[in-house]
Amino acid sequence: MSEFMGPRYLLAGDTANRLYQACKDLPIIDYHCHLSPKEIYEDREFSDIGEIFLAGDHYKWRLMRCHGIDEKYITGDASWGEKFQKYAEALATAAGNPLYHWTHMELRLFFGIDTVLNGKTAAAIREKANAVIREKHLSPRKLISGSNVEYLSTTDDPADSLEYHKLIAADPTFSTIVTPAFRPDALLSLRKPGYADYICRLGKAAGMEIVNFTDLQKAVEQRLDYFCSLGCKFTDVGIEAFPSDTGSEEGAAAAFAAALTGQEISDEAYDCFLGFCYVWLAGEYKKRNLVMQWHIASKRNLNTHLYRMLGPDCGADSVGDAVPASSLANILDACDQKDALPLTVLYSLNGGACPQMATIAGSFRNVICGASWWFFDHKQGIIDQIETIAQVGDISTFLGMLTDSRSFLSYARHDYFRRIFCSVIGKWIDDGEFADDENALALVSDVFYGNVKKLIG
Amino acid sequence: MSEFMGPRYLLAGDTANRLYQACKDLPIIDYHCHLSPKEIYEDREFSDIGEIFLAGDHYKWRLMRCHGIDEKYITGDASWGEKFQKYAEALATAAGNPLYHWTHMELRLFFGIDTVLNGKTAAAIREKANAVIREKHLSPRKLISGSNVEYLSTTDDPADSLEYHKLIAADPTFSTIVTPAFRPDALLSLRKPGYADYICRLGKAAGMEIVNFTDLQKAVEQRLDYFCSLGCKFTDVGIEAFPSDTGSEEGAAAAFAAALTGQEISDEAYDCFLGFCYVWLAGEYKKRNLVMQWHIASKRNLNTHLYRMLGPDCGADSVGDAVPASSLANILDACDQKDALPLTVLYSLNGGACPQMATIAGSFRNVICGASWWFFDHKQGIIDQIETIAQVGDISTFLGMLTDSRSFLSYARHDYFRRIFCSVIGKWIDDGEFADDENALALVSDVFYGNVKKLIG
Amino acid sequence: MSEFMGPRYLLAGDTANRLYQACKDLPIIDYHCHLSPKEIYEDREFSDIGEIFLAGDHYKWRLMRCHGIDEKYITGDASWGEKFQKYAEALATAAGNPLYHWTHMELRLFFGIDTVLNGKTAAAIREKANAVIREKHLSPRKLISGSNVEYLSTTDDPADSLEYHKLIAADPTFSTIVTPAFRPDALLSLRKPGYADYICRLGKAAGMEIVNFTDLQKAVEQRLDYFCSLGCKFTDVGIEAFPSDTGSEEGAAAAFAAALTGQEISDEAYDCFLGFCYVWLAGEYKKRNLVMQWHIASKRNLNTHLYRMLGPDCGADSVGDAVPASSLANILDACDQKDALPLTVLYSLNGGACPQMATIAGSFRNVICGASWWFFDHKQGIIDQIETIAQVGDISTFLGMLTDSRSFLSYARHDYFRRIFCSVIGKWIDDGEFADDENALALVSDVFYGNVKKLIG
Repeated sequence: MSEFMGPRYLLAGDTANRLYQACKDLPIIDYHCHLSPKEIYEDREFSDIGEIFLAGDHYKWRLMRCHGIDEKYITGDASWGEKFQKYAEALATAAGNPLYHWTHMELRLFFGIDTVLNGKTAAAIREKANAVIREKHLSPRKLISGSNVEYLSTTDDPADSLEYHKLIAADPTFSTIVTPAFRPDALLSLRKPGYADYICRLGKAAGMEIVNFTDLQKAVEQRLDYFCSLGCKFTDVGIEAFPSDTGSEEGAAAAFAAALTGQEISDEAYDCFLGFCYVWLAGEYKKRNLVMQWHIASKRNLNTHLYRMLGPDCGADSVGDAVPASSLANILDACDQKDALPLTVLYSLNGGACPQMATIAGSFRNVICGASWWFFDHKQGIIDQIETIAQVGDISTFLGMLTDSRSFLSYARHDYFRRIFCSVIGKWIDDGEFADDENALALVSDVFYGNVKKLIG
Repeated sequence: MSEFMGPRYLLAGDTANRLYQACKDLPIIDYHCHLSPKEIYEDREFSDIGEIFLAGDHYKWRLMRCHGIDEKYITGDASWGEKFQKYAEALATAAGNPLYHWTHMELRLFFGIDTVLNGKTAAAIREKANAVIREKHLSPRKLISGSNVEYLSTTDDPADSLEYHKLIAADPTFSTIVTPAFRPDALLSLRKPGYADYICRLGKAAGMEIVNFTDLQKAVEQRLDYFCSLGCKFTDVGIEAFPSDTGSEEGAAAAFAAALTGQEISDEAYDCFLGFCYVWLAGEYKKRNLVMQWHIASKRNLNTHLYRMLGPDCGADSVGDAVPASSLANILDACDQKDALPLTVLYSLNGGACPQMATIAGSFRNVICGASWWFFDHKQGIIDQIETIAQVGDISTFLGMLTDSRSFLSYARHDYFRRIFCSVIGKWIDDGEFADDENALALVSDVFYGNVKKLIG
Repeated sequence: MSEFMGPRYLLAGDTANRLYQACKDLPIIDYHCHLSPKEIYEDREFSDIGEIFLAGDHYKWRLMRCHGIDEKYITGDASWGEKFQKYAEALATAAGNPLYHWTHMELRLFFGIDTVLNGKTAAAIREKANAVIREKHLSPRKLISGSNVEYLSTTDDPADSLEYHKLIAADPTFSTIVTPAFRPDALLSLRKPGYADYICRLGKAAGMEIVNFTDLQKAVEQRLDYFCSLGCKFTDVGIEAFPSDTGSEEGAAAAFAAALTGQEISDEAYDCFLGFCYVWLAGEYKKRNLVMQWHIASKRNLNTHLYRMLGPDCGADSVGDAVPASSLANILDACDQKDALPLTVLYSLNGGACPQMATIAGSFRNVICGASWWFFDHKQGIIDQIETIAQVGDISTFLGMLTDSRSFLSYARHDYFRRIFCSVIGKWIDDGEFADDENALALVSDVFYGNVKKLIG
């Protein structure tokens, strides 16, 4: 029996611990997150742990709703003290939820607090944490630097000016490299209200007028070059739809024209537009040596009531249906046939589809599976993802952990992942199923750092 | 190495055992079962363990068929002695099957027999068990009371007179509360032969004639009030189909009218009818503070030969395809938008869809996942369900175990569940991932008893 | 902590070891493999471990591609020494991949080499292995006999002359029984280029001209009788499509006629043809007491570039989408209703669908699930398959391991399976969940040998 979060926390055995000790201090390369470059640049000192924990974290909101807590204490006008209290009450019995793990890791790592958080301890913990904030002047950059983050990539719209990326790059006092990632969700979302306005904004950003699909392509190429000029190495896409096959350029152009004039876009036209754009964008990425990330099989904004009240990203999303094997294979194959397949990382929110996705990935060079995502970013989900990739593919090319987070405290999750990864490999060694030699250490070190380091140069 | 079913059976460690010892004697609230109120009322003494075990238990029939046993010894005219012998022979090598666990738990709990059941021991075990039946005058009520069942909810058709519920309630010698649950499968099964006759019966039960959809709604409301007058707190539905979206009242009314006159109902019309009815019924349930249970993704009566011979519930059902995420989300959202979403419990027979279902549930207040169901009500299935709910939701609001059974011996499954639940929580504590404080004990006690107790008042 | 592949390799505890020691030397009946009868007959001595390991093993090619190795060293013109070196480099960090397990088991079992294979050891290991090849004159028959293979069934096209099966049967110096299995994939693949030519070849093999569907049926019956005359006991099918329901004979005949004249076959016509043929073939198999195997939910040849370069079976296949429950149930039920359901073994490449498949199988007599297949033939995949079958069915009727392999070294996988199977059963015994009596031993022995032995007589 172990103590709560003892020194061997999540480390299953001596070998796991040995691997962990050898590699735990490698720098973090957070190649996919949702941190705000503005907040990083402005570096405003935090005022309350309630705000840091709860201001925008829909994971926590969701848990609180599940626990029956009134919306007033979640997204309403209650004070940070009241909200933190309610969160602590919900967390106290949330056994097995990753928030239970993360919260206690964050309290230890950033605030030096090893008390268990619950309704009785919440007030004292908040007081102590707020004292730490004041004493250490905790701010975004303090948390990033303190987490040994060498490099981070935010997630940015093609129309974004990236002004804060430029300001950060120009500031010699902050050593973490902060780069933008190209995420064309908005320009692919042909059927969303306001699409024409968005295209207008995109044109302005590119310094041109976009009146047809050829213009769109030119503008995107311009924006890609601009992103690259600021160090962009990663792209991403995370819309709900996934195309069934590559579409024709004519069809894509027609759908785009229809969208600009506010016409209804049929399922077929949308599918054609997406299919063409996915393959075309892949080629543009490959030309520029960018990594292509696909986040698939999510379902968003299920709760109309909450969406109207709070907008997207409020904690009302779910696992989507699995993307059909033929769709995923068709698009990858179309890219490959055009020699337009860059290094591609697949993330599915439908965990059950992961073995399928991994075997599809393994049918193409340079296509790999990413870390377990969102609802599956918990201990067992991480173990399952590592094991699946290892069983049907090659775990040694895995890119390891990313935070995918809006919170500056989320760097604790890298330690979470590292402990778990070492436990999986360590257990295989302890069970006599993997050799305990320098290759094991190289594997861990590459997954924690080396593999992504090679990509960012 | 442990002895067979030793004192630490299914208990993984000291903490699990400590939690179990503290909570194992809490009363049982069996909020969803298929026991016969008639049999409970009549309380006829059993005559043979063969009959108790095998008379209606399609789980056991199925295992016997898989083992190659002739139908004569399953549902045919063999004696109880012969049937019990054949069952024992099939069971002896059924490692890992929950029947192996349940059967031996039932032999111990109700008959004090700790011999392993197999072909060689069957005759002696039957003899001893039958002696216990005679000696203790074992009967339905004896088994229920002996299992410390405080409350049980049967599953009843809206047209049912509920006469036995009334008789049981009026009998002061039986302290277990027996209430009906409202299960409108028959009135939703628009395309089943005999639908018009059923509606006629329903009308009679409601004291009115049902000639159109408005009448149907009135009759259902009347029956709901009647069920509530007899203590009904739970509803359920378990048909194969699940609607893709909320339907129009006009469409539902048209489909109903067509069904009454024996016309063919198209897939679209059926979907519309179901969609409207699900949302409408949810509202009626909410008004009456009833819990809504949905049993989804089952497939029934696959084997035409057996169905013609034995009818439904004969052991020829299977896991169905997963309900599409959009269907489940659409119906829940439609209820929610009308403020017509009561406390809702989702059960999917497609275990792989459980993480998806749990994340959809978590997008709405008052929607939770239920216990692992039917084919997944085995040790690992129960562990998986508990862990999934914990990982993507809040295990502290889990309603715990129900038997969902036709057998009076099934109360042993509560002990099965309780041991497993304590092992999951205990292991997290032992691994240092959950704090060992009063919240852990409160969590276990609430899941075993407190959460459902709150619902039944 | 265990040493690498120590004596208790994959054996979780004393009970597992005891069961394994008692049953590990039972002969192997490899009832489904892809070995070449020509190579078995000719029995050419091997020349290089590089060739044995890498000449046709697309599992290894795939791992090497995932690892980023140039195609030259995979299927190109590099020497066996170079290829073996590159394979060793890729393998060294492939923790958790079954190739890591199999390769080291094969090195030990067939070459007596217990060094860990990696980039540094590759040259010395190859040298030693090649010395063993020369010294022991290793050849196909040496490997088969040395593996204690009593019986093996190859996989053969209905148009095959089976000449090598006859030659092997006539050779008294080789005691392993080698029989053909009937695999009608080509005659079912109505839409493949060259279908009419294939049917022409099939007609020649059957000594008749096939001009219509009735002829096809006659020819197939003739070929089935011929296969049976050479000891055929097993059939198989592994095409991508699976019919949604039984089709009409008229529809099947029309589709066949259209295919012979090179017309396009619609999805509906293809589905009808397949549906009719599956049920008709099942009946023909049952008449002849043949086992029917269905390999479902695979997706083939995803990578057009590789397919054009290397053809099928080059390591670019994946898990397919799950077959809908209704399709599988409809076809089985149609066979059953015609009393045309032979012993049927289902294998799904979509592992997530296994619980569903197992519950569908359990709804029919004589339908069982087979061993975990292809991408899931790894330690955890094997455990999952055993546990699923046990939990929702009857593990005692499981047919155990088959190699499904093109490699003469793959008999090591039987030992892999046997260790894992004993661990699953042994753990249940150690945990007090299964009795430690003669039934446990009988179960293991039947799964390893007895159950298939009964089938081959």
